Amino acid sequence: MEVAALVAEARLGRPRAVARLLSLVENAVSSPERAGTLREAMAELATGTREPYTARVIGLTGAPGVGKSTTTGMLIQAFRARGSRVGVLAVDPSSPFTGGALLGDRVRMQEHATDPEVFIRSMASRGHLGGLAWATPQALRVLDAAGCDVILIETVGVGQAEVDVARLADTTLVLLAPGMGDGVQAAKAGILEVADVFVVNKADREGVQATVRELRNMVALVEAPWRPPIVTTVAAKGEGADDLLAALDKHAAHLKGSGELHFRRLARARDEIEAIVLARLRSRLADPQEDRLASLAERLLAGGLDPYSAADDLIAALN
Amino acid sequence: MEVAALVAEARLGRPRAVARLLSLVENAVSSPERAGTLREAMAELATGTREPYTARVIGLTGAPGVGKSTTTGMLIQAFRARGSRVGVLAVDPSSPFTGGALLGDRVRMQEHATDPEVFIRSMASRGHLGGLAWATPQALRVLDAAGCDVILIETVGVGQAEVDVARLADTTLVLLAPGMGDGVQAAKAGILEVADVFVVNKADREGVQATVRELRNMVALVEAPWRPPIVTTVAAKGEGADDLLAALDKHAAHLKGSGELHFRRLARARDEIEAIVLARLRSRLADPQEDRLASLAERLLAGGLDPYSAADDLIAALN
Repeated sequence: MEVAALVAEARLGRPRAVARLLSLVENAVSSPERAGTLREAMAELATGTREPYTARVIGLTGAPGVGKSTTTGMLIQAFRARGSRVGVLAVDPSSPFTGGALLGDRVRMQEHATDPEVFIRSMASRGHLGGLAWATPQALRVLDAAGCDVILIETVGVGQAEVDVARLADTTLVLLAPGMGDGVQAAKAGILEVADVFVVNKADREGVQATVRELRNMVALVEAPWRPPIVTTVAAKGEGADDLLAALDKHAAHLKGSGELHFRRLARARDEIEAIVLARLRSRLADPQEDRLASLAERLLAGGLDPYSAADDLIAALN
Repeated sequence: MEVAALVAEARLGRPRAVARLLSLVENAVSSPERAGTLREAMAELATGTREPYTARVIGLTGAPGVGKSTTTGMLIQAFRARGSRVGVLAVDPSSPFTGGALLGDRVRMQEHATDPEVFIRSMASRGHLGGLAWATPQALRVLDAAGCDVILIETVGVGQAEVDVARLADTTLVLLAPGMGDGVQAAKAGILEVADVFVVNKADREGVQATVRELRNMVALVEAPWRPPIVTTVAAKGEGADDLLAALDKHAAHLKGSGELHFRRLARARDEIEAIVLARLRSRLADPQEDRLASLAERLLAGGLDPYSAADDLIAALN
């Protein structure tokens, strides 16, 4: 299908067209040479009448085992009950494989798989182009153009992934579960900075009070205008969905009221451009300079050369 | 102190000099303008008589709560018992703060804090220069020059951090604990690719057999020449240390015998140069082009402009 026709169909929310555009993004991650069509599609998407960045973007992050997929499933259901069109990106920053990596988890979202108003996509973001930061904004752009009211981004992993997701989302949910041992403690450093809402899932388990208390003590130290609320859920049973939606809506209102929404989306647009620029600069390092880089690496290994002088040499060759 | 004198003292293994050089690395992450002294130090380090990349580099990764710090502590003790000089880098890729972020966990390593043959450093790797990939190789360079026989890199977080650590290390340990729920399943995608040795810690807990079985089934599918062994430990009690050391030694012998060691270190050297080059290219985007980038981001937000055309504009301005 021609790109213009593909984009037109995606705008109408036709699942197959949306899926094909998302595949263009994903394929470009592992094969930059295929990025040409994607580029065309992005130019075509920019000609739409719907304002970009219309969809609410909600990020979900947390350690493996806290129930991110189940919570995503619960949120899909809750937003569908409101009549929203929902996009879901499940991003696995460690996987170099396409699509299937997270299929096991996706099973829990199967009940929504046949709903034409729900687009679910597992994306492997690792590749030559700089990972999550490169691919996800472009996938968001596709889902946004397809008329999604809400886009949920679920990511595997804590640490860098947590921060990256927070930069992509309007609102970031940080999920925890009781009895994760050192979970709260270990995650503390990065967690407070990125969390807009805390979710303590599996709240029917022992230790939930202790986890909530620990979080409350952390949150009490926050001096910013928005102090992250703590919501308890049992996503597997759909418990706590209303509280969670209420917290999300409250944060959305805060974002609009404070002007923070524009600020965050501007940062996202900036990151999106920067990621494309950096991927392009990096590709200049790869192909024509590959031999030079390899021989500099050999010299570094042998000793006598320092890494900064090696970098100077390469930059001089680039210019 | 003058840089040459500082490096000379670090080469003698003087803890204060080593700490100061590590601080130079860490400070440069958040304040690139201070990178000048670091650069001098790196040039001076390259003049040493000890071959670079002499230290064995062992990475430890795994979800929060599996006992990474405790296992690191056990390994420090085991290597010290052999008379090795040991360096430890605890890297927190999500934390923008200096030093103290992981202090809570580091308490478990306190017993080694006064041992002059052990250098322990918590490093926040987030910053303007590209994170873990920029800072850690340079910190390794310092510890290597300081005569460490073994360097342990412990990282918070799974996902991207897992992969990044694997690229920095000769040998990567992936830690799990029984009863982590979906831990193995969720981590599967990235885990097999990076693990050289699996450690099932907290092996006195229920469910250890199930976790080991699950791992064994995964490992059975590996067709590479090295099939990751699975070691069970109770690091808090020091149980399993001998088995773990034996597995590490076996992998070290495999790396040497197969030529894989050279290959991995070459990739590390290559990454090290590339990270410095990319940080420099990125800094060209920041300062003089900041206004242009900001206004392109505004236009992207307003609609009508696509991100690739925005990137073109910026690249044209760079050249």
